[in-house]
Amino acid sequence: MDFDLIREVVVPNETKIVLLVMDGLGGLPHPGTRRTELETADIPHLDRLAEEGICGLVQHVGVGITPGSGPGHLSLFGYDPLRYRIGRGALEAVGIDFDLGPRDVAARGNFCTVDEGGRVVDRRAGRIDTDICASLCAELRSIELAGAELFVEPVREHRFLIVLRGDGLSDALSETDPQREGVPPLEVRAEAPEAEATAALVRAFVEQARERLRAHHPANMLLLRGFAKPPDLPQFPEVFGLRAAAIAYYPMYRGLAKLAGMTALPAGPSLSDSLASLRENWGGFDFFFVHFKGTDSAGEDGDFQRKVRRLEEVDAFIPDLLALGPDVVMVTGDHATPSTYRAHSWHPVPFLLRSRWCQPDPARAFNESDCQQGSLGVFPATDAMALAMAHAGRFTKYGA
Amino acid sequence: MDFDLIREVVVPNETKIVLLVMDGLGGLPHPGTRRTELETADIPHLDRLAEEGICGLVQHVGVGITPGSGPGHLSLFGYDPLRYRIGRGALEAVGIDFDLGPRDVAARGNFCTVDEGGRVVDRRAGRIDTDICASLCAELRSIELAGAELFVEPVREHRFLIVLRGDGLSDALSETDPQREGVPPLEVRAEAPEAEATAALVRAFVEQARERLRAHHPANMLLLRGFAKPPDLPQFPEVFGLRAAAIAYYPMYRGLAKLAGMTALPAGPSLSDSLASLRENWGGFDFFFVHFKGTDSAGEDGDFQRKVRRLEEVDAFIPDLLALGPDVVMVTGDHATPSTYRAHSWHPVPFLLRSRWCQPDPARAFNESDCQQGSLGVFPATDAMALAMAHAGRFTKYGA
Repeated sequence: MDFDLIREVVVPNETKIVLLVMDGLGGLPHPGTRRTELETADIPHLDRLAEEGICGLVQHVGVGITPGSGPGHLSLFGYDPLRYRIGRGALEAVGIDFDLGPRDVAARGNFCTVDEGGRVVDRRAGRIDTDICASLCAELRSIELAGAELFVEPVREHRFLIVLRGDGLSDALSETDPQREGVPPLEVRAEAPEAEATAALVRAFVEQARERLRAHHPANMLLLRGFAKPPDLPQFPEVFGLRAAAIAYYPMYRGLAKLAGMTALPAGPSLSDSLASLRENWGGFDFFFVHFKGTDSAGEDGDFQRKVRRLEEVDAFIPDLLALGPDVVMVTGDHATPSTYRAHSWHPVPFLLRSRWCQPDPARAFNESDCQQGSLGVFPATDAMALAMAHAGRFTKYGA
Repeated sequence: MDFDLIREVVVPNETKIVLLVMDGLGGLPHPGTRRTELETADIPHLDRLAEEGICGLVQHVGVGITPGSGPGHLSLFGYDPLRYRIGRGALEAVGIDFDLGPRDVAARGNFCTVDEGGRVVDRRAGRIDTDICASLCAELRSIELAGAELFVEPVREHRFLIVLRGDGLSDALSETDPQREGVPPLEVRAEAPEAEATAALVRAFVEQARERLRAHHPANMLLLRGFAKPPDLPQFPEVFGLRAAAIAYYPMYRGLAKLAGMTALPAGPSLSDSLASLRENWGGFDFFFVHFKGTDSAGEDGDFQRKVRRLEEVDAFIPDLLALGPDVVMVTGDHATPSTYRAHSWHPVPFLLRSRWCQPDPARAFNESDCQQGSLGVFPATDAMALAMAHAGRFTKYGA
């Protein structure tokens, strides 16, 4: 999608758009029944939306490419995921609700075990408890660096986040993780001339951390990977002229939305929490991104029946959502997570859009087969926002 | 579409191609019957063409983007409407049959009312009669400018066209319309160094016009907008190797075709006028663009039944068209104008192509649903000409 063209045709109005993302929505047939999770679930309200609306299958990155959660969501928000990339360190920061700023460089850290010769013998330090990780991070946080502020935050088990904040920092840095055991951690190197100063800061941090961790076997050393500045995203509210809000309980999805410039609204683990937040903030925003995690978790666990139940839970929430009177509702996923596959997959994902201005469309139910027959066919996820804007009357015509 | 590739494979032959554009063709379901205008109309001949031919839905500019008439037609002629843009002033000129040349800069004018302090109090001068507009234009036409020829032509009510003709003129000029009342008209400014001389000419025109209009309250001043040179279009007959003709009664559509290098043939308000012109000129041209306005007007008026009748009128004209023996017939629209929406819309538009070389295609009737199921799917309007050329045997193979 061409953001300059979008900006050229955007006009303000009072309409409301809801994007409901069921994480890992798409599925594959159960070997016993030959029916997918969506085809198995009893989801009359979603089926009705599909019948009244227009349907298709969205492709987030490209044919055969399995999207991570970052690219999966960014593409639904309209960003070309091949152009706008979120580095690993930035995604880790977002995933623990750390607000990355433009002067920050983030990296993923692992506590590891080294022998007396300094050679890595366990890249994960025996997967220490998160509590221990937190106390080691507190210890490292007191390291002082000349010219940068330092943040060290626990993530889970042996994983943590470091962030350097300062002027002129660069993320063009090599990793210190040798990716195998029996050799020492690598020294960080600048991969561009402008990164020399940052490389020196990281080396200073690593040296001091080595001293402080020496006595904390098995977590007696650390490895750093995925140095990244936050992505420089055009801001969603500016591009689309929308007051945009995110209702997402899990930090990563909330963080992705915040990177795009959306306002994070209160969210809880259940759909009724999301509904309460929607109701409370309905007047204050034009666009609502609502994230539902349960479908993905069930798919990752290979639990076909639980994924079916999660779909039915979402279905039960649809009437309350419609009672708010949205002008455009979109329902889709950020990628497929078929229960039989137990992981993110590359399959294009069911999509529906319902408004009062929908063209005739043959889809009669919300599932892979009907959506494949839908009028939108297989289409890029980055087109979804343009469809929503058009159906919400928020685009004027192009040319006279 | 890649014009260099087209030029590389074009070969001459004797075949005939007809592009019939029903303006604003696409529709939406009637709320009572759930059938669109095309699904409601009795159009056996168009249905037969759809059954024999290949069908799809054309998208003129991009997903969700509502095409104006200019981009809608240019894209059907094969021009990327995001690359080839027609400025407002140029389109106004085309719309009153003014033949813009490469040395011209055109602008839209409004007569307006100013108070004694020179502040705009009515941007439309009370929508004066077109007769008064014409006499004021005649008055202004006698203004002499050093270094440019001046044309001032009435359009309708308070609207008129000015054209400056001369060497080295530029359209990089700011508008004089303040877009609100209570402030004086703006002074025109050059928006690029090469436009300084043109800006001085426009200021001289405005100063003299102010004197001449002073006594003509309420039309005692003017505002200028949308300065534009004619677009620099590769010429359609050269690109496609076709002797190309336009049969369009309304000046804007005829003018668009002329900008693309087509020959304007005589046209009248009715389809029998178009047919007579087709018959008369059948031997002299290879390509005929035939424009039919009635479908759009009915849609804009929100008159579902009238749009249905217009479709049936076009249907009745098809046997006479086929009797001429065209090798390729395409029928489509430049954009949708659903009667329920009462305006141009973004929905992709039914398209059919019939020749003796059509692949199997499931569409059995000419309407939104069947065309959506057609073998062409949703496709860019800029591809239509390549399909026509291929089916007319006018492309040789690419590579050996």
